[in-house]
Amino acid sequence: MLVSGRRRLLTALLQAQKWPFQPSRDMRLVQFQAPHLVGPHLGLETGNGGGVINLNAFDPTLPKTMTQFLEQGEATLSVARRALAAQLPVLPRSEVTFLAPVTRPDKVVCVGMNYADHCKEQNVPVKEPIIFSKFASSIVGPYDEVVLPPESQEVDWEAELAVVIGKKGKHIKATDAMAHVAGFTVAHDVSARDWQMRRNGKQWLLGKTFDTFCPLGPALVTKDSVADPHNLKICCRVNGEVVQSSNTNQMVFKTEDLIAWVSQFVTFYPGDVILTGTPPGVGVFRKPPVFLKKGDEVQCEIEELGVIINKVV
Amino acid sequence: MLVSGRRRLLTALLQAQKWPFQPSRDMRLVQFQAPHLVGPHLGLETGNGGGVINLNAFDPTLPKTMTQFLEQGEATLSVARRALAAQLPVLPRSEVTFLAPVTRPDKVVCVGMNYADHCKEQNVPVKEPIIFSKFASSIVGPYDEVVLPPESQEVDWEAELAVVIGKKGKHIKATDAMAHVAGFTVAHDVSARDWQMRRNGKQWLLGKTFDTFCPLGPALVTKDSVADPHNLKICCRVNGEVVQSSNTNQMVFKTEDLIAWVSQFVTFYPGDVILTGTPPGVGVFRKPPVFLKKGDEVQCEIEELGVIINKVV
Repeated sequence: MLVSGRRRLLTALLQAQKWPFQPSRDMRLVQFQAPHLVGPHLGLETGNGGGVINLNAFDPTLPKTMTQFLEQGEATLSVARRALAAQLPVLPRSEVTFLAPVTRPDKVVCVGMNYADHCKEQNVPVKEPIIFSKFASSIVGPYDEVVLPPESQEVDWEAELAVVIGKKGKHIKATDAMAHVAGFTVAHDVSARDWQMRRNGKQWLLGKTFDTFCPLGPALVTKDSVADPHNLKICCRVNGEVVQSSNTNQMVFKTEDLIAWVSQFVTFYPGDVILTGTPPGVGVFRKPPVFLKKGDEVQCEIEELGVIINKVV
Repeated sequence: MLVSGRRRLLTALLQAQKWPFQPSRDMRLVQFQAPHLVGPHLGLETGNGGGVINLNAFDPTLPKTMTQFLEQGEATLSVARRALAAQLPVLPRSEVTFLAPVTRPDKVVCVGMNYADHCKEQNVPVKEPIIFSKFASSIVGPYDEVVLPPESQEVDWEAELAVVIGKKGKHIKATDAMAHVAGFTVAHDVSARDWQMRRNGKQWLLGKTFDTFCPLGPALVTKDSVADPHNLKICCRVNGEVVQSSNTNQMVFKTEDLIAWVSQFVTFYPGDVILTGTPPGVGVFRKPPVFLKKGDEVQCEIEELGVIINKVV
């Protein structure tokens, strides 16, 4: 609740000011909509919890989707850097709708059992990453609702660090992997445990991929804006109560390892998203198990990246 | 080899004729490239094994990708119908490169254990469909090479009927499902059994989704051009030898059931592909098991739809 309060305070401050906001030097790319704009636009969040600079207004030749923006690589990134250095009008946060920073990527790759402390919780030794997936159709925005499907009675939370790919590649070496990363964002890997663990021949896909089961955002924070992606506090709160609290330094396989591993199998494309696994504290392993119910509010927060807040309906 | 010979004969006949070809009344939509054209184009295959009519030349306002074409629904389909009725120039088959009829869909949904005779082969009773997925990045064209990855020693064949979605929908009733189908095509669900069955925590994804593991095509045959999608001979040949031979009437869950089932979980979008499962005769269940090796040629053929021919390299 503290964070939400701080966010509201910042929003109020931003709304109050009449002059252009001095943005932070961090590049926080967003996809957003606003009442006066037609369709989704690309923007810059002016710091964690700040207002939004309309990148398409700054340069109308820029694409309007993140995937296309990333496909153009350095050319579009340099435009965003110029926008960051300029004094530009800022849309108050209250006047924009944040979309997921990436929508309809070629793939959403997910990693199971990737936190040392989460593996301990399940008493599972981990030798290689376990890779599964969600369909892109499960992605929703950072403040969108998560819809409890009537087909499941066991919907659970999982806060995760998400990596967004910026450059195409196959058979990428771990030492080259960061060159293929655009940046990082916060993900909620919502999971229907009944479907994941007991139905569908124990293939996890269906339990993981209900519509709205992949909130992402609020921003794609570019890699040069993150001091160390593998040393960030990560936390999940349900109705304000901390249910997961760990650090990305607990990840068994780091970003570089995961990209090297998965790119043995598939070509990565700009916009592809990797959900890197969740720390301990999920509902299904509690005694007794706890699951999400209508009206719950889940906050997933990662240091430097931001917080996503999703109401369960 | 007979089919391949017939194809070559037809190609030769088509090349010999100097006047516009009278197309069949079946609508066989393709994505193709040709040396004189920039980038992928949409076309009509003039009958199974015939040449190609350039739809984008017939109507330059048509989109150039199948997904966009399908998104526009009846508007674009009616243009294709007019093209089919007109006397238009035909590009000889030898002058075009066939792409997969759908590329980079939102999802490739796969169904496991969906042929009564294939389930019997494994002695597995089936109560509900088992759903898994491939990434869209695994899709290749109907005559493209399948690359044997050094990471697998057990790459197997699976001929399958593929359904292509034409209309967005969620919670689709079986009785309404065919209204969401654009048509059908042939798929090869190439499968690395070691990765599918023994690695990756027994999650099938990785074994199913290596690059090139989803040849599709040659055409999206629209549903009104297929007499009965659930009564088509389906067959797989490896180096000319028949290894799978069945009929889609053996499918446990038909197209309508599968769409109803999967749309409980996810929203379908135009261009989404469903691989409906494979008949018996795969290599892994032979005694001793047989797997694909470099130099093999796999032909997957479905009556009325066509044949895809993929060399293993």
